[in-house]
Amino acid sequence: MSPKITSELLKQLRQVMKSPKYVQEPVQAYIVPSGDAHQSEYIAPCDCRRAFISGFDGSAGTAIVTEQHAAMWTDGRYFLQAAHQMDNNWTLMKMGLKDTPTQEDWLVSVLPEGSKVGVDPFIIPADQWKRMSKALRSAGHDLVPVKENLIDTIWTDCPQRPCKPLITLDLSYTGVSWRDKIVALRSKMAERKVLWFVVTALDEVAWLFNLRGSDVEYNPVFFAYAVIGMNTIRLFIDGDRMMDPAVREHLQLDSTLEPEFKIQVMPYGSILSELQAVGASLSPKEKVWLSDKASYALTEAIPKAYRYLTPYTPICIAKAVKNASETEGMRRAHIKDAVALCELFNWLEKEVPKGTVTEIIAADKAEEFRSQQKDFVELSFATISSTGPNGAIIHYKPVPETNRTLSVNEIYLLDSGAQYKDGTTDVTRTMHFGTPSAYEKECFTYVLKGHIAVSAAIFPNGTKGHLLDSFARSALWDCGLDYLHGTGHGVGSFLNVHEGPCGISYKTFADEPLEAGMIVSDEPGYYEDGSFGIRIENVVLVIPAETKYNFKNRGSLTFEPLTLVPIQTKMIDVNLLTQKEWAWVNDYHQKCREVIGAELERQGRHEALRWLIRETEPLVRVQ
Amino acid sequence: MSPKITSELLKQLRQVMKSPKYVQEPVQAYIVPSGDAHQSEYIAPCDCRRAFISGFDGSAGTAIVTEQHAAMWTDGRYFLQAAHQMDNNWTLMKMGLKDTPTQEDWLVSVLPEGSKVGVDPFIIPADQWKRMSKALRSAGHDLVPVKENLIDTIWTDCPQRPCKPLITLDLSYTGVSWRDKIVALRSKMAERKVLWFVVTALDEVAWLFNLRGSDVEYNPVFFAYAVIGMNTIRLFIDGDRMMDPAVREHLQLDSTLEPEFKIQVMPYGSILSELQAVGASLSPKEKVWLSDKASYALTEAIPKAYRYLTPYTPICIAKAVKNASETEGMRRAHIKDAVALCELFNWLEKEVPKGTVTEIIAADKAEEFRSQQKDFVELSFATISSTGPNGAIIHYKPVPETNRTLSVNEIYLLDSGAQYKDGTTDVTRTMHFGTPSAYEKECFTYVLKGHIAVSAAIFPNGTKGHLLDSFARSALWDCGLDYLHGTGHGVGSFLNVHEGPCGISYKTFADEPLEAGMIVSDEPGYYEDGSFGIRIENVVLVIPAETKYNFKNRGSLTFEPLTLVPIQTKMIDVNLLTQKEWAWVNDYHQKCREVIGAELERQGRHEALRWLIRETEPLVRVQ
Repeated sequence: MSPKITSELLKQLRQVMKSPKYVQEPVQAYIVPSGDAHQSEYIAPCDCRRAFISGFDGSAGTAIVTEQHAAMWTDGRYFLQAAHQMDNNWTLMKMGLKDTPTQEDWLVSVLPEGSKVGVDPFIIPADQWKRMSKALRSAGHDLVPVKENLIDTIWTDCPQRPCKPLITLDLSYTGVSWRDKIVALRSKMAERKVLWFVVTALDEVAWLFNLRGSDVEYNPVFFAYAVIGMNTIRLFIDGDRMMDPAVREHLQLDSTLEPEFKIQVMPYGSILSELQAVGASLSPKEKVWLSDKASYALTEAIPKAYRYLTPYTPICIAKAVKNASETEGMRRAHIKDAVALCELFNWLEKEVPKGTVTEIIAADKAEEFRSQQKDFVELSFATISSTGPNGAIIHYKPVPETNRTLSVNEIYLLDSGAQYKDGTTDVTRTMHFGTPSAYEKECFTYVLKGHIAVSAAIFPNGTKGHLLDSFARSALWDCGLDYLHGTGHGVGSFLNVHEGPCGISYKTFADEPLEAGMIVSDEPGYYEDGSFGIRIENVVLVIPAETKYNFKNRGSLTFEPLTLVPIQTKMIDVNLLTQKEWAWVNDYHQKCREVIGAELERQGRHEALRWLIRETEPLVRVQ
Repeated sequence: MSPKITSELLKQLRQVMKSPKYVQEPVQAYIVPSGDAHQSEYIAPCDCRRAFISGFDGSAGTAIVTEQHAAMWTDGRYFLQAAHQMDNNWTLMKMGLKDTPTQEDWLVSVLPEGSKVGVDPFIIPADQWKRMSKALRSAGHDLVPVKENLIDTIWTDCPQRPCKPLITLDLSYTGVSWRDKIVALRSKMAERKVLWFVVTALDEVAWLFNLRGSDVEYNPVFFAYAVIGMNTIRLFIDGDRMMDPAVREHLQLDSTLEPEFKIQVMPYGSILSELQAVGASLSPKEKVWLSDKASYALTEAIPKAYRYLTPYTPICIAKAVKNASETEGMRRAHIKDAVALCELFNWLEKEVPKGTVTEIIAADKAEEFRSQQKDFVELSFATISSTGPNGAIIHYKPVPETNRTLSVNEIYLLDSGAQYKDGTTDVTRTMHFGTPSAYEKECFTYVLKGHIAVSAAIFPNGTKGHLLDSFARSALWDCGLDYLHGTGHGVGSFLNVHEGPCGISYKTFADEPLEAGMIVSDEPGYYEDGSFGIRIENVVLVIPAETKYNFKNRGSLTFEPLTLVPIQTKMIDVNLLTQKEWAWVNDYHQKCREVIGAELERQGRHEALRWLIRETEPLVRVQ
């Protein structure tokens, strides 16, 4: 990795920061955040502006360029990578370290009095704008919206914004028609007495209209906004995608419909002016509902008195609770995914001893097996294929410079998943293709105990996921061990592999309570820098639990694993398991054998079936 | 309980709300909160203004009186009691129910346009003022501070503010002199670059100066404020308490001291004007540190630009971490307390079958035995002595109307504690003096499993208490049971039985991490309305834990029980305990027998000793 040379680019950026062509008044600093106009976690190449200007292409970071300085804020995952990718023009601001200034404090310390700080109002979320604007104002500076993105003005070979064909999902996949989703949304709007709802997150637009796209890698979404009124539906989307007869039919664009279900298709770029028109048309007490993470530009389009902002939108919450069709789809997707992984692990067991399998080859092979499965669309995130010390890098992605060969002497960690038309998968298994050490088995078994503690937990209706996080750590804590990431995240249904509003993490307090039908991951781990990484991840479905009693008639919940891939018994120290944990492993493997075995049989994958049967032999208690 | 007749009082209050003698302009509503000027949990009789005006004397509630209405907000613990104690002039606002309006919303709905809402600025915390003022302003009303408390103007027989003698604590109790505490505080102030620190909480004043009082029942505190500068110490306190030679000697009031340790004693009532003088004297960048819970009056005395507000003050945090002398004192206090309870339970075992022991008699007897112990001062809270269905009322306190006789057929729950000069205790035991049912034993054992899960938990340094809360519930959750209160609270050292900034509760996210030396309670329970209540509470000390490994060199913590009172083995279903839990109970009882047995022996309490030995017989595993 050699750093990107940015002297010329920075010079150009500093010129446009003063150019009356782009800014009303010169700005003395310009902020380049990571995100796109939809506050997406994964972004399209045309939105990688921070990577373009700095060279640093990690998933999180904010660049700020002033007349004299260029600085990059990023977190501990990326200190090394950012230092490698950026040239001497840049100062790395290591977030989380005690002496690192906040962006606001740094700006205040370097800016001349009465400066203007520019930012693209479509990229910065409204809540961040508010915080930063307040801090700058109290120091005598101004945060100002710069309409034209200044990076785009100097990015001559900027890729086009993707505009790929759409996939329509019928009722067998979605369970609920888009019309019924609109009806449900309007009833939530009526409850809160709002007249308009603005859909800004890409996965929320996709979910609402039962459409999928491929504008962003790994996430089956497409660039669009929607504005839903009590009698109107406006979809802001570009390209000839709306000419596709299947899409027109799906959205009933050419049918005679009740007016309140008639979709008005408008250009993607017209969202701001249309929203401003909505804002201008409101009477007192009429409200517009937006996510508090929506962009400053769109939030500002609605006068403050008319805004109704919430951290989670009604779509976000409805989307999280999967219906029967979605759950069945997720089950099917996980069965296919397990078939692919049985094939992969069987293949690895044969090939690894030959010394020819690298991390990249293993990742590619996993994708190859997955792509053989029905309704496979793409991967759901960049495969983490890591062996030995690379396994301890939690967000590792193999590249030629780091690519390691799998061997019978090292632990191998594979965290991977796919998008199928019927569901999204995300699974981590940690394997040893030789003989694991007693210490490796011990650590693996603690992680397994944590995984089981969450998976088998029974908890009252209304419990928030963060209250379960410590269950995953207890066995590790007992021995002085821990892992420095959350335990689980929400998973979309043929949608984003990370979605709100629920999760299992010590860091989250704003999560919504878990409900039957929600789907989350359960993925405790243990990582030893320079040596190895262990993680055991299943995707699990929240289901009602039968309990002996029923306090206050609240009802209880538990989890059902959707992921059905054997957990390597070779890595388990059976003596560390309680009776209950031991039974859980055997029950789980029995289910893997039955469900995945039947599918392997059906697909005629006999060698993988033999591997599965071998790997799901019941654990024998030694005591 | 007959309701208080309030028609005349309300008429008088409504008159003073319009009287130019007390208000600059008439106020259309007047808010009467629960607290005192120090935001104390327990308050003195002279501060029970809300109880005076309404008749409702529960520990939590806010009254609002307008020209037409009188309304009382309180929570689920007090719905019944408030309804009984208030007459028809009052509307009960049941907090936590869906249709109950907030105080702000209700005010907006009943007030004429452009109203003024009055409140005593010394009673309302600044953060509450801010929230309410904003809500009222956005509806066109004004929240205004009314200097003279309007309740006091009509409360003709209002008790005097207590002004009882002080107790001085020497180094053997406190471990650190008040001078060294001032030095440490000033170093925290220097770190944060503040010039002044305002001590508003009564227990913080008491802790800082190593003084105790008895102005408030159960809490060994006294009415005072302090303002600490880098070179000055001002103590605001009334009465001739400062004439006591022991106090003068303790505070070195008559000694020749370095000026920065010279305490200026000022009248309690002069705090506001003195603070205003401080506020007026500040230069830019000079800051004054206050709790964000301090009263609006004191907060407002410092111009906004000069305020430094934090949720927990440096005294609150320092006070929570007990030093060796305090810990040793707490140990001694808990040994004496256990002696008293062994006597009590031995006595109850003999007396209950006779049918002559009521809840009140049992509570009095507990106090009698405690008062026989060295350095006993008073109880640390109102004893919860409850049998049968009364045990299910979590905040029960026996009164003649509810007083129930203990019997061999019902569960008895005793939650009690005392203030000793060397420490504060708080212990709950649940006993059966006959033969408990299988179901009662089952529930008791789940609660015990939860108690042990917290007490024996090992967790990394830096862990916040709320992350341990679910451990206490897991065994109950497994069977569909739960309890609707937190699991633990901080405990003072001969100070308030409830203190911040740490605790163990699903409700708290703003708690500070647990540290070695902190002391909290561990008190899971189970309550069945109309039948029985179970709670098992120990006070536990946070101590370093020895672990097999030490991830990232963080170190681990665990708890050591300070409370050493047998847990009734008759109530335990041994078959529900794991090997580890079974061993915990036996180890705990072994320690009770050794430590408390020696003290019973020393005090010549032979009958109680025999009881202790019987009650600490090892549990035998049946399996």
